[in-house]
Amino acid sequence: MITVGTELLLGETIDTNAARIGQALAGLGMPVIRRATVGDTPDAIKAVVGEALDRTGLVIVTGGLGPTQDDLTREAIASLLGVELRFDEAIWEALVRRWATIGRTIAESNRTQAMVPEGGTALPNRLGSAPGLWIDTPRGLVILLPGVPIEVDGLLADEVLPRLVARHGSVPITSRMVRTSGIPESRLGELLGPLEEGFRPVTLAYLPDQVGVDLRLTAWRLDPPTASAALDAAEAAIRGVAGAWIYTTGHRDLAEVVLDAARAAGATIAVAESCTGGLVAARLTAIPGSSDVFLGGIIAYADAVKEQQLGVPAALILEHGAVSEEVARAMVVGVASRTGADRAVALTGVAGPGGGSEAKPVGTVWLAWWRGGQVTTRRVCYPGDRGQVRERAAQTALLGLLGAD
Amino acid sequence: MITVGTELLLGETIDTNAARIGQALAGLGMPVIRRATVGDTPDAIKAVVGEALDRTGLVIVTGGLGPTQDDLTREAIASLLGVELRFDEAIWEALVRRWATIGRTIAESNRTQAMVPEGGTALPNRLGSAPGLWIDTPRGLVILLPGVPIEVDGLLADEVLPRLVARHGSVPITSRMVRTSGIPESRLGELLGPLEEGFRPVTLAYLPDQVGVDLRLTAWRLDPPTASAALDAAEAAIRGVAGAWIYTTGHRDLAEVVLDAARAAGATIAVAESCTGGLVAARLTAIPGSSDVFLGGIIAYADAVKEQQLGVPAALILEHGAVSEEVARAMVVGVASRTGADRAVALTGVAGPGGGSEAKPVGTVWLAWWRGGQVTTRRVCYPGDRGQVRERAAQTALLGLLGAD
Repeated sequence: MITVGTELLLGETIDTNAARIGQALAGLGMPVIRRATVGDTPDAIKAVVGEALDRTGLVIVTGGLGPTQDDLTREAIASLLGVELRFDEAIWEALVRRWATIGRTIAESNRTQAMVPEGGTALPNRLGSAPGLWIDTPRGLVILLPGVPIEVDGLLADEVLPRLVARHGSVPITSRMVRTSGIPESRLGELLGPLEEGFRPVTLAYLPDQVGVDLRLTAWRLDPPTASAALDAAEAAIRGVAGAWIYTTGHRDLAEVVLDAARAAGATIAVAESCTGGLVAARLTAIPGSSDVFLGGIIAYADAVKEQQLGVPAALILEHGAVSEEVARAMVVGVASRTGADRAVALTGVAGPGGGSEAKPVGTVWLAWWRGGQVTTRRVCYPGDRGQVRERAAQTALLGLLGAD
Repeated sequence: MITVGTELLLGETIDTNAARIGQALAGLGMPVIRRATVGDTPDAIKAVVGEALDRTGLVIVTGGLGPTQDDLTREAIASLLGVELRFDEAIWEALVRRWATIGRTIAESNRTQAMVPEGGTALPNRLGSAPGLWIDTPRGLVILLPGVPIEVDGLLADEVLPRLVARHGSVPITSRMVRTSGIPESRLGELLGPLEEGFRPVTLAYLPDQVGVDLRLTAWRLDPPTASAALDAAEAAIRGVAGAWIYTTGHRDLAEVVLDAARAAGATIAVAESCTGGLVAARLTAIPGSSDVFLGGIIAYADAVKEQQLGVPAALILEHGAVSEEVARAMVVGVASRTGADRAVALTGVAGPGGGSEAKPVGTVWLAWWRGGQVTTRRVCYPGDRGQVRERAAQTALLGLLGAD
């Protein structure tokens, strides 16, 4: 897999296409064996695609199919393969129509997007103007996709994956994610290391991020029932030693797990956020269908908002400070009683970089949870910068709403 | 630059290190010429690092320095270079102390992190357990860094960049970002294409994302005053034809621009969010120092919260629906009057995937802005999925708070 773009090498843009294409191909049992990125220069594009064709029979290239002068992939590939580009009238007409439906006139510069290398097939792009290109050559198959992530998704689903399955069949690589929070990677490694040999042919990978460690179990090229049984056995072994830190199996975000648990209990949820400033609510509302469980909440950033919108007594803030167990407790009681929510969480803390003190250093957060009238509280001091403190505090808030913290 | 990890090829993890290292090196005038990713297999690591050493004099490798069985980079590089790994007592003692300070006992498996290839130098890692490694060889310089993004940042700033400057000097590549919103890439290309020749040796790249198109101007290997003058001239030319769509120059997020503008005007900000569910507030509070401008707000997801916490009349919701100009207006008036904010925005919409109708399809959002008692409203229908609708609506909300929409 090749991604093209000087902005990727300069680090102005994070390459998310590589991950989405890697996932899609792994699902077909065609794992990516190497991935490379080069800048918007024809020689570099030709060299890296040529080397990839020498190494494997299928090369996917993304980026550089746009309408501007720095979009050079189409020409570089035609030059590498020694074929001409021809203007495709049907693609151009489809582009003109597409722009007309959103009430705009197409720019002449988009004409380059209707150029197809000889012998290539255009792959219709529902979500953008550059069609993908499928080019079967004696050296192997080259697939060109635009760089815009949503267009990559659409073209993969509509065109590339069905065509690859039709051509090669599919022996899936099956993965299962077991998600943990609250235990460091090395400790997990000590618990699980002795078990790994017994998982074969299932392999285990540790994927740590800021808020936990995901464990990826992968069954390589087994038929589906065998893969499923092997993954079940490995997961059961992991749960036997690390079950206390597992909050879900699969790719669900913790917010989705929290919403599903509340929905199953017929409970509603509200939040009162100070230092996280809307992050907990944003994670919950990112999940489709959250509106049947999540009522809303108060972002009480200023003390006056804590007092007026949550009923936190000014004297309490004066006596204990805004970052205190007492204020967190008053915030959660305030939001639960004002919204009538069955479950609620409140956070007040010092996200930094300013505002820390010896008694309450940057990273100090008080959390309070409400569950049907019972309040529990917890103080945590998170390491990291402002973004990390906020993300980690939001994670703890959600874990507590789940009742698994 | 090489990143190591099967999870990257399978697409389970998005590679953010590549961007941060690319940026740091570009700033020193050492642009990355190619980047590659391979899985956690020693042969693949050896092959790709060997090829990179044949191509260039400096190879940075991230990932695979952790304590678990899938961390194989250290051994693969020692094998490639034909040197032994030796256990470094000083590194081990530092690791033991580090774990003790956070109240934990180090795992024996962390001992591999104290192994150093012969002739290599360990680079202290303030933020994690795996030190970086700096290995000067006859074939070139190989730098190994762990895979955890915050540790990469710390090692770059503390060790790698100062050492590279000391060794090679620095002729920076200077970039300037000009950020636009509200105009498609191809239209920008038509406006700016005729000007590009005149920018030389400054180059122009188009970096579209979901909420706008960033224009990156890059001065390649010019001394700082010449680079600055050339970038000024190019930026002025761009502003001449596309100024109406430019909201800032530089890397500041729109939320930071909004906060700075309000701070300069002595104004405070509040939000009332339904469909975006806290995203606007989360973007504002992500910015350090936002608390002197941003007061807070109401996440009014359920209608009852709109009524009770924002004073939206139930009859208004009944008559016009929750997604309506009238309700958006009542929400913004409610949050401004309850918090006393000088500037406020309210959003109510259909983020999808459910909830759409013929009159109000998925993507329909009503926005209302309050500025010192004046209310303006706007209806937008955003394309895309739930996440895109929410992100785009939050962007429009912030543009309106800036007064540049």
